[in-house]
Amino acid sequence: MNLETILTPAELPALARRDLRGTACVVFDILRATSTFVTALQNGAQAVVPVSEISEAVAFRKNMPDTLLAGERDGVKIRAAQSGGVDFDFGNSPREFRPEKVRGKTIVSTTTNGTRALRACAGAKIILASSFLNLAATTKFLNASPPEEILLVCAGTGEGVALEDVLAAGALAGLVGGEFSDATEIASRTFLYAKNDLAAVIAGSQNARRLLAIPELRADVAFCSQRDIFKTVAADGADGAIRLV
Amino acid sequence: MNLETILTPAELPALARRDLRGTACVVFDILRATSTFVTALQNGAQAVVPVSEISEAVAFRKNMPDTLLAGERDGVKIRAAQSGGVDFDFGNSPREFRPEKVRGKTIVSTTTNGTRALRACAGAKIILASSFLNLAATTKFLNASPPEEILLVCAGTGEGVALEDVLAAGALAGLVGGEFSDATEIASRTFLYAKNDLAAVIAGSQNARRLLAIPELRADVAFCSQRDIFKTVAADGADGAIRLV
Repeated sequence: MNLETILTPAELPALARRDLRGTACVVFDILRATSTFVTALQNGAQAVVPVSEISEAVAFRKNMPDTLLAGERDGVKIRAAQSGGVDFDFGNSPREFRPEKVRGKTIVSTTTNGTRALRACAGAKIILASSFLNLAATTKFLNASPPEEILLVCAGTGEGVALEDVLAAGALAGLVGGEFSDATEIASRTFLYAKNDLAAVIAGSQNARRLLAIPELRADVAFCSQRDIFKTVAADGADGAIRLV
Repeated sequence: MNLETILTPAELPALARRDLRGTACVVFDILRATSTFVTALQNGAQAVVPVSEISEAVAFRKNMPDTLLAGERDGVKIRAAQSGGVDFDFGNSPREFRPEKVRGKTIVSTTTNGTRALRACAGAKIILASSFLNLAATTKFLNASPPEEILLVCAGTGEGVALEDVLAAGALAGLVGGEFSDATEIASRTFLYAKNDLAAVIAGSQNARRLLAIPELRADVAFCSQRDIFKTVAADGADGAIRLV
């Protein structure tokens, strides 16, 4: 089985020209979109719908009033003044998505790079949203019915690579095994040279340093660095909603 | 000093929007463009002019008949039938650029990714073409007059990352030191998890495997994997010609 890796968001547009029908895509946006999605589903949410823009989230709730909205700008939960009159229910911190709040709910979440990465995988055999929190579960799922090819997709930040996404991709590659592309080899070696000190290496990444500087969000870094606390496997459906599989 | 890294050619177009006036760019196209340029200059070539297309090389020689032409397609030196009547003087193997052939000459070399990476750095304070062959010399040059920022540019292959370029970028980052971006951290850790076995790791890269399968070119892989056999430092001038500095 071939394991390829997309290291940077700049490589995503080229995916539109590829036939992904035999490919399982695994998307990582460790700090924090996919970690948050996995946590919400683990805690009983029915579905998480990632969108890019605040206006998309607001429009979604107009059609489905029971929906909860998640998103933040500059580390602060989106307020009515930013969204044309709607206070959002959550920020983007996975620790907010507690069972009593999310059980049975559909959550629309605004996240730029996570959404972009998931959408770029359109047409794949399956699209999984993964994280350190459910890496072993994701691996087990892939090994149970191996696809022709696995494409590990690092969502990144803005136009650049995010170290923590590459670490997760490298960790998964090592668990799954197979023929590594150069990019997968890079992710794997990056992880192997970090694994004995993983939480500290993640904490040194650009995204982590940004979060660690915001008192209410700093605990998110340690939360998202936890390995295999959940057995959840999350897949993006043709309707754009992520659910348990 | 900040050390940033461009891992993939997909990130190059975004450089056009950046102010690089305080930045030293270091371009790596290990297999084989920058290794070849450095070797040719070390062996006495006056200048190497990288171009993308065969037609550009041929046009250059029309204006400067003393120019030598380098380039290959599918591992074979370019022949008259492919270039509108001009047999090229060299392929792209660094081992061809021997002192008695190149001394005092200007060489025009067709190389897609190397040329693209060098051109994407236009406007930088300085643009160096580097390789494992002259990594210590390049480091010494940078440390002698540290720029505000260093941008390590991995030329890659086609639209994808090339492992050997990232290994070289990571090795240079470790020698120069400074504040690493996430991408530089990835390159550095990839190198650190390969350094005890560097030639073998390079030999396992996608480009190396392609070269190793061609009998006349297989020795290029070991040649380009040699550390610091040259004291040469090579810089791309405003006229698009690479010369010793």
